[in-house]
Amino acid sequence: MRTSIATVSLSGSLTEKLTAASRAGFDGVEIFENDLLASPLSPEEVRARCADLGLSIDLYQPMRDIEAVPAEEFARNLRRARHKFELMRRLGADTVLVCSSVHPLAVDDDSLAARHLSQLADLAQESGVRVAYEALAWGRHVNTYTHAWSIVEAADHPALGTCLDSFHILSRGSDPKGVADIPGEKIFFLQLADAPLLAMDVLQWSRHYRCFPGQGGFDVAGLVRQVLRTGYDGPLSLEVFNDVFRQAEAGPTAVDAHRSLLVLQETVGVAAPPAPVVPTGVAFAELVTPDAEPVAAVLGALGFSRTARHRSKPVDLWQQGEARILVNTSGAARRTGTGLAAIGLESPDPAGAARRAEALLAPVLPRRRAAEDAPLDAVAAPDGTALFFCATDRPELPNWRADFADVAGESGGAGVHRIDHLALTQPWHHYDEATLFHRSVLGLHAQESVDVADPYGLMRSRAVTNADGSIRIALGGGAAPTDDTVHAQHIALATDDVVAAARRFRQAGGRLLPIPANYYDDLAARHEFAVGELETYRELGILYDRDAHGEFRHCYTLTVGRVFFELVQRDGYRGYGAQNAPVRLAAQHTARAVIGG
Amino acid sequence: MRTSIATVSLSGSLTEKLTAASRAGFDGVEIFENDLLASPLSPEEVRARCADLGLSIDLYQPMRDIEAVPAEEFARNLRRARHKFELMRRLGADTVLVCSSVHPLAVDDDSLAARHLSQLADLAQESGVRVAYEALAWGRHVNTYTHAWSIVEAADHPALGTCLDSFHILSRGSDPKGVADIPGEKIFFLQLADAPLLAMDVLQWSRHYRCFPGQGGFDVAGLVRQVLRTGYDGPLSLEVFNDVFRQAEAGPTAVDAHRSLLVLQETVGVAAPPAPVVPTGVAFAELVTPDAEPVAAVLGALGFSRTARHRSKPVDLWQQGEARILVNTSGAARRTGTGLAAIGLESPDPAGAARRAEALLAPVLPRRRAAEDAPLDAVAAPDGTALFFCATDRPELPNWRADFADVAGESGGAGVHRIDHLALTQPWHHYDEATLFHRSVLGLHAQESVDVADPYGLMRSRAVTNADGSIRIALGGGAAPTDDTVHAQHIALATDDVVAAARRFRQAGGRLLPIPANYYDDLAARHEFAVGELETYRELGILYDRDAHGEFRHCYTLTVGRVFFELVQRDGYRGYGAQNAPVRLAAQHTARAVIGG
Repeated sequence: MRTSIATVSLSGSLTEKLTAASRAGFDGVEIFENDLLASPLSPEEVRARCADLGLSIDLYQPMRDIEAVPAEEFARNLRRARHKFELMRRLGADTVLVCSSVHPLAVDDDSLAARHLSQLADLAQESGVRVAYEALAWGRHVNTYTHAWSIVEAADHPALGTCLDSFHILSRGSDPKGVADIPGEKIFFLQLADAPLLAMDVLQWSRHYRCFPGQGGFDVAGLVRQVLRTGYDGPLSLEVFNDVFRQAEAGPTAVDAHRSLLVLQETVGVAAPPAPVVPTGVAFAELVTPDAEPVAAVLGALGFSRTARHRSKPVDLWQQGEARILVNTSGAARRTGTGLAAIGLESPDPAGAARRAEALLAPVLPRRRAAEDAPLDAVAAPDGTALFFCATDRPELPNWRADFADVAGESGGAGVHRIDHLALTQPWHHYDEATLFHRSVLGLHAQESVDVADPYGLMRSRAVTNADGSIRIALGGGAAPTDDTVHAQHIALATDDVVAAARRFRQAGGRLLPIPANYYDDLAARHEFAVGELETYRELGILYDRDAHGEFRHCYTLTVGRVFFELVQRDGYRGYGAQNAPVRLAAQHTARAVIGG
Repeated sequence: MRTSIATVSLSGSLTEKLTAASRAGFDGVEIFENDLLASPLSPEEVRARCADLGLSIDLYQPMRDIEAVPAEEFARNLRRARHKFELMRRLGADTVLVCSSVHPLAVDDDSLAARHLSQLADLAQESGVRVAYEALAWGRHVNTYTHAWSIVEAADHPALGTCLDSFHILSRGSDPKGVADIPGEKIFFLQLADAPLLAMDVLQWSRHYRCFPGQGGFDVAGLVRQVLRTGYDGPLSLEVFNDVFRQAEAGPTAVDAHRSLLVLQETVGVAAPPAPVVPTGVAFAELVTPDAEPVAAVLGALGFSRTARHRSKPVDLWQQGEARILVNTSGAARRTGTGLAAIGLESPDPAGAARRAEALLAPVLPRRRAAEDAPLDAVAAPDGTALFFCATDRPELPNWRADFADVAGESGGAGVHRIDHLALTQPWHHYDEATLFHRSVLGLHAQESVDVADPYGLMRSRAVTNADGSIRIALGGGAAPTDDTVHAQHIALATDDVVAAARRFRQAGGRLLPIPANYYDDLAARHEFAVGELETYRELGILYDRDAHGEFRHCYTLTVGRVFFELVQRDGYRGYGAQNAPVRLAAQHTARAVIGG
């Protein structure tokens, strides 16, 4: 189906909005009146720009407070409409959105509303334009789509149809089944928006919190299915008012937006991108660093051994059990400092995974980073992390491991057997995008988002996982821009004995994050422990939590650059210790203040 | 009365919070449990720190899910309480807050709740501690203050009283009159928070949107009056959960907080700071600039003349009618660039105004900037703007004008007769603080806040004025941090003929902000104009609005540094052209892109 987006959903000048929509692959746009008013381009120039960019102008919007108003007011409205229809002619837009009236003088009189809309449609028809009438959820008298349709039906005018908007329908809890009563050719337009399920004033909710389909709590797909059954063949168009998108760069927002429509089309069965190939484990995590020494010291103390070196690049492979960490000292890190740059995802079908990702607008990275490397499918996540689709030690497929030559390396290990989870920091305005990306591109399941209090701001965190938990990625982000060095990335390592692993780390010279004594006094108040157990945790800085499934013990290394490590022992426990995160975040601030890092 | 603040209301480590509370003048604090847990200080060290800072620990908070739960759960709760009471002993805190239960197993049984709370109070009494029981607005069975009190009354235990919280009472629309039925000595604590009037889930509302009294829509003062009538003699304590304060610096937030309590005490009649002295006009606006030339060129073209020069400093006075603008080229501006640094407010009693400001925690600036200057009372507004309280040409008072020597300067003028309004840009997290500051310190009236769409984010704006409109200050701010050069300050100049003033400005070489042609097409669609009128506006870039009181015509100069000028002709109109602001903001972006400024 054709896809469209309202210019109000993107930031910047009209030109920037149009360019972003086109680059992201949209077929058309809705031109929001204020965006045109504020543009130095004439309507003809906008029309030409859209044509150059391959965009149709699917809707001009909105006209307000048109119908069921006193005669004098309505006369003024017709005068205004005449101007706007002429403008639409210059613009090459053939459909105008009319929102149900919120005018204080509007009367509750459906036959008057139908008469007024019919007169407006007469005028529209003369100008070769169609009128799409939509019920605002907060319309004064008309606020349900069934009501708006009954007025359109009564008016019975060829140039008058209805516009359906998923927000206005679903925010009021209206049953979308009634859509079946509307002939498809009378649905002139379909606007789509999702929203988080908030109990709040619907106008505020609509103006500030809308989001792209799949990023909120509405059954947008269910509504779209209903609409498609009517025979509707107009575009799927996004109209999203969102305070975050207003500030974010238009380019990435448009990509996020278009991805949401691709996923929606797949969900409702009108498009079939390559099927998701769910990863089955973490092949490796790759750190970049300008100086391998501090990272090597921490990895060594954690029980890792340097087992191989890349044949042509300054990349070391450190391994312990199934946990593999690449340490890359090539030039890139000189600017960014030590950070988590890439994740190798074990994939049943790397090429298929990459095809899926590309179809869903993930930027594809070069398959070979150097001529002699094994070709490796990779894409970039929204936060810039490279995701490699790997087939480790499967002879029929290119093997990244083959690029590495074994080196002598010996360590007894510290009982770490795999990477438990990876925690990535999202740019503050890409949190919902990151969730949809990992869910749709990788086929992972998204858990509930939780709020976590940092001493200097509120953070959000949400895990995406596969079914057996062999891939767990925690996506974290501030609720607003804050010091992002605070919100470091981390690699959590699974062990069956966190106490032993922590002791070994310490004995090998590693430094664990000190946890305040008050935390342990509180643990003692909350839970009963075996004799000596709490003292051990207190000594080592091990944190504790439990859920309905089991117990959780975990501790943290100090941060190197933007990365730290966590040792986790989860005995059935399914969470990530969110309960302890405020204490950990505060302790990291304290440690930073002390070591001046 | 004594004032207190919950540590959760401020950002940072516990030490930072305590220091900020003390410096702002609070007498005590509520220690939020999580802040203690996350602190490396032992309870004894926290106690000592508070003592050093002159702070009492008025409340330890909160204990949750204590009462009306199954026996096994309650036994665990008593065990936990024993630990916490011991902790409170170490801390030197004698009152603990217990919130009404939200536990899924809690039963709706007031006599069980009373029995449980009584048992808890027994234990508390042994430790020399008191229990203050509070109804959460979302408590499972107990969610009104009258219900919480009836349980406390039934328990009839000397160590058990109630805690009243203005948010929990007023968010539910409870009538505060019922407070009269509670004996003052059984009100163990009073927590205060205001909130904007939002129709939203009360838990989310409470956790994210609370604000300081006088910054929201609740009648906090009315509740406090009721409480004081009971004979309550505990502290007035602020407990404010707010996403903005979480990120803002603790120091300024604490000052804002304490100011809100000072104003509240004045409102309810338990404190009498010096009365407000409402300013009666703008004596001058002061620009700082590293280079006087561009500013002088604009002022000259606007019809201003350089009429005087400061006797000892590089400051020129430019004047036209009653509009006076100081241009200061002293060193300070080299770092900040051209900006609006100070406002001279015409005051009936400058010394009284300064006493008022100082009593309400406004930073007082040195009275004389140099030995030879006339002594001038001045304070700093939250955004750093210096506010001078002036008595221009009143012989009995020091006159700032006397510091200036007249110079030859001649101009026909352009019909500007006074400064209409000044628009100041607030740091994004100080918008509510700025409103309360101007309202309480200067005695101005605050108008409704309006949202304004900028191409790269949403802005808020609110005017504060005196009764006759001779002082109008528009406080603007982003809803989140954005490019603050975008949100420039401006000086609006009143004229009776904006067309003539704009023409003269142009003829004198001034550059007006170009307004897109589309804007005028829209004006033509909305309003009828005399023949040629719209063409004139289009030619000059004059914008148009009207309200119930009259018409408004205005235009803008290009921006110099962080400042631009507006020419306004208000024929009865009372607003500020907010309707046109999105077009103006977009045009400023376009102009910046074109001139590369």
